Amino acid sequence: MTESNKPIGLAVLGLGNVGSEVVRIIEASAADLAARIGAPLELRGIGVRRVADDRGVPIDLLTTDVEALAAREDVDIVVELMGPVEPARKAILTALEHGKSVVTANKALMAQSTGELAQAAENAKVDLYFEAAVAGAIPVIRPLTQSLAGDSVLRVAGIVNGTTNYILSAMNDTGASYEDALADASALGYAEADPTADVEGYDAAAKAAILASIAFHTRVTADDVYREGITKVSAEDFASAKALGCNIKLLAICERLTNDEGQQRISARVYPALVPLDHPLASVNGAFNAVVVEAEAAGRLMFYGQGAGGAPTASAVMGDVVMAARNRVQGGLGPRESKYAQLPISPIGFIPTRYYVSMNVADRPGVLSAVAAEFGKREVSIAEVRQEGMVDEGGQPCGARIVVVTHRATDAALSETVDALADLDVVQSINSVLRLEGTPE
Amino acid sequence: MTESNKPIGLAVLGLGNVGSEVVRIIEASAADLAARIGAPLELRGIGVRRVADDRGVPIDLLTTDVEALAAREDVDIVVELMGPVEPARKAILTALEHGKSVVTANKALMAQSTGELAQAAENAKVDLYFEAAVAGAIPVIRPLTQSLAGDSVLRVAGIVNGTTNYILSAMNDTGASYEDALADASALGYAEADPTADVEGYDAAAKAAILASIAFHTRVTADDVYREGITKVSAEDFASAKALGCNIKLLAICERLTNDEGQQRISARVYPALVPLDHPLASVNGAFNAVVVEAEAAGRLMFYGQGAGGAPTASAVMGDVVMAARNRVQGGLGPRESKYAQLPISPIGFIPTRYYVSMNVADRPGVLSAVAAEFGKREVSIAEVRQEGMVDEGGQPCGARIVVVTHRATDAALSETVDALADLDVVQSINSVLRLEGTPE
Repeated sequence: MTESNKPIGLAVLGLGNVGSEVVRIIEASAADLAARIGAPLELRGIGVRRVADDRGVPIDLLTTDVEALAAREDVDIVVELMGPVEPARKAILTALEHGKSVVTANKALMAQSTGELAQAAENAKVDLYFEAAVAGAIPVIRPLTQSLAGDSVLRVAGIVNGTTNYILSAMNDTGASYEDALADASALGYAEADPTADVEGYDAAAKAAILASIAFHTRVTADDVYREGITKVSAEDFASAKALGCNIKLLAICERLTNDEGQQRISARVYPALVPLDHPLASVNGAFNAVVVEAEAAGRLMFYGQGAGGAPTASAVMGDVVMAARNRVQGGLGPRESKYAQLPISPIGFIPTRYYVSMNVADRPGVLSAVAAEFGKREVSIAEVRQEGMVDEGGQPCGARIVVVTHRATDAALSETVDALADLDVVQSINSVLRLEGTPE
Repeated sequence: MTESNKPIGLAVLGLGNVGSEVVRIIEASAADLAARIGAPLELRGIGVRRVADDRGVPIDLLTTDVEALAAREDVDIVVELMGPVEPARKAILTALEHGKSVVTANKALMAQSTGELAQAAENAKVDLYFEAAVAGAIPVIRPLTQSLAGDSVLRVAGIVNGTTNYILSAMNDTGASYEDALADASALGYAEADPTADVEGYDAAAKAAILASIAFHTRVTADDVYREGITKVSAEDFASAKALGCNIKLLAICERLTNDEGQQRISARVYPALVPLDHPLASVNGAFNAVVVEAEAAGRLMFYGQGAGGAPTASAVMGDVVMAARNRVQGGLGPRESKYAQLPISPIGFIPTRYYVSMNVADRPGVLSAVAAEFGKREVSIAEVRQEGMVDEGGQPCGARIVVVTHRATDAALSETVDALADLDVVQSINSVLRLEGTPE
């Protein structure tokens, strides 16, 4: 392999934070990239919404016609960094149909249209890489698809959304309310103007779908992922979590469950959960991401780093670009979509987890017994109970707060219990129901 | 790709902890492996030193003639798990020359003979994989060679030897002496009967050579790695480290340094160092391994998990086996050795680090000033000094201990300073000289 090989033509669709950094790296590291690929990498064009001479790149590289750019004859690899599902999906399909390898950071798209895109890549015998779609710079897709290809993954649990982790870290550190922490995150640029995709867990759910698909060789889409956001997590929850030796994190969890008959099913879910302080995910703070993988032979592995941002995401994109380019030069293809296992996806109702339930109750004898009875009736076993008196604004006693931590129970049994508790006269309000992850049963 | 593809023949050389686990996985996960590879994996033979019917595998698979097994016509992939450099090197060369892909966990061999082996693989157009040679189950080689292929690695710092980390963790937790902690580790099976390769840093140096080669696209052998073991680390050092807010870890460090003229060189070194408690490596305890990678665009990444043991190492081996087998089925090759950069390797004398120096001195006026003067003369800037009185066995004052922490200085300047200190009348003994890593200048 020498640098005299035919150049590899590159099209970049999208010139935001990530796209600009990708273009910068291609220029700044041209010699290194050529040596690693075995041929020079040449930027043929950049797809943008607005062609102007203030974009920091030569204006003749810019075009608004992304479809034409994706199909151009002198383009070998298309890097899609436009963002939303459309027009990205269409542009990627165009590229694949024209025999281009594709690198994308588009998690929403990959969590929705994997099948269609993987099939198009398969038909064209080209690479479709998306390491940057999950956890930014942190290599997760490649370790799961390659390094662990000879092992059996049992569980993937990750903090994969930087915005919500920033907000929850701030609430934990300062005792702030959710609203205040969100406002702070927005002011500092860690949350978007419309934070819905992050705070309601849609972004994390897309990543969970991608991780579950890869870890369990089963096609999982974002619609298959159970999802709860962080908007109802309160300062009181953090106070209770602290008393229990826990932090609260938005987790994406992908799990393989085996029943007594040896039948397997998988679960993919996103929700805020209490995590004990000695668990490696409990101390992943701020905008950082981390993914813990548990596999039969490997045991527990953790991957940690920056999960978002222009430069870290560009690092993951460029790793994919170099691999796709090397395959163009050497011949060969990276791993294809692997969906042979086709394991059924379990509804959340059947998933056993531990729970934390906080409620306000009347402060009189027999209340705790009445509350405990509702758990017992549904065979939800209680691990720990805390009760504390409350005072109103005038300093007068006004009932008590009970926090119950359960052993493992199904979501269905717990939901029934909570409904029954809410109907009890002595229960004034159910304040929160959160899961507890990362502990023994 | 269907399972009707021609089977992939496998030979396993060595049936120790790792080999047995590899054989177990091949049998227990046959259907999954076949689906992932696109063809069944068939075990053709196992090379052992002793053929007997008590090895837990069918006796007709066993052979002592590893050379013949490595060359057998129906073998596509040879997995080398025999251990020492020879006869492993010869068997791997035989396999490569006969067109077999090779997977090895042999760090000593890969740190010594990479060039020869890589060239043989290149000539035969086959894969040579060695993920298991560094940090057991933790994917490190593949992230560095592939995920970060588009980025520029600045630094790799890792805890890559489980035995020494177990010993140092015990010293930190219990205040034990090195000798007692080693005896304990031996009794529990964490240290071998002859622990030299671990405690003197040879194992870590081999891994540092492999990591540096890959991270910096430069051929680095174990002989190029500066090496100090942990045998001189004392309980007093741990006490001082605690007082300074640090732990002590055996680190393997690979670094790219750029001078004022923009010239680059690299450093690869292994030594025990003080690490501040808020650094992610400080809390990696027991037999666990972790590798921190700092890259220009990706920022800081950490990979954490089990660095040794039969099952974790087998997980890494099997990942390589599946990738090599897939390449056999699909066509194509994994990444080749990349040594285009050929950066010069800097001698340790030129490497600037921070230092911790502990010495016993006479307890009289002017001593601290005399000590400080020796640092100043060689432009080694002092960051922190601690002095405490000492008492002898009878409770009588018997001098003082001075601990100095410096700013960054070259090894050469520091060595000169220490020699000069040792010559001072007021200095009774130099107790230890350790480096401080993971802090600002």
